[in-house]
Amino acid sequence: MNIKEELKEVKAYFTPKIITEVNDQYVKIAKIKGQDLPWHNHKNEDELFYILEGELLMEIENEANRTMKTGDMFVVPKGRNHRVSSLKECSIMLIETKSTQHTGEVESTITRSIQEQMY
Amino acid sequence: MNIKEELKEVKAYFTPKIITEVNDQYVKIAKIKGQDLPWHNHKNEDELFYILEGELLMEIENEANRTMKTGDMFVVPKGRNHRVSSLKECSIMLIETKSTQHTGEVESTITRSIQEQMY
Repeated sequence: MNIKEELKEVKAYFTPKIITEVNDQYVKIAKIKGQDLPWHNHKNEDELFYILEGELLMEIENEANRTMKTGDMFVVPKGRNHRVSSLKECSIMLIETKSTQHTGEVESTITRSIQEQMY
Repeated sequence: MNIKEELKEVKAYFTPKIITEVNDQYVKIAKIKGQDLPWHNHKNEDELFYILEGELLMEIENEANRTMKTGDMFVVPKGRNHRVSSLKECSIMLIETKSTQHTGEVESTITRSIQEQMY
């Protein structure tokens, strides 16, 4: 499976696509554009962000903002309030425990079930 | 942390470098050149391979060989005998459960402890 090919299937922003699983983790890809993702946290799960292409603004509560660029990797520790956004389209890879809800316990217009992330 | 910068620290082939952890998994990078890695398996752990740059020959017992290229991702399921090699230098990302021994139960000249993978 090739990441660039998989990215072509991702049409909607903020809608992760599960591309494979390894042990108890899902590997997902997503495209980010805009500020639709609400502040949220994952109580018990770390979340890894890896920038495939573009720039991502990573905001974490009580920390300085980070501008992530292609090839950058960052892990948001469990329980930490965070939000990501991007002015232009940004493609990312995510690693999350299978139990992780991608918008935490916050229900928003972009919230998708695990089933909806398998496309 | 940037993957390209981290790769500059990796000088020896077949010597994974742990770059971060997410939940119960290590994210590692490595450079592969040659055929020094023996056939091995990880009894209880899947192992994810993602090609950052170059070509990797992925051999799995009783399966057709796979030539993996930049951007390709493949998960070797737990318990499956496998071996990777490359004629030219290939840079890869790995995701492994923290308990995974990188050459399985096979001790070889390239076997490194977890401590030795933290550089």
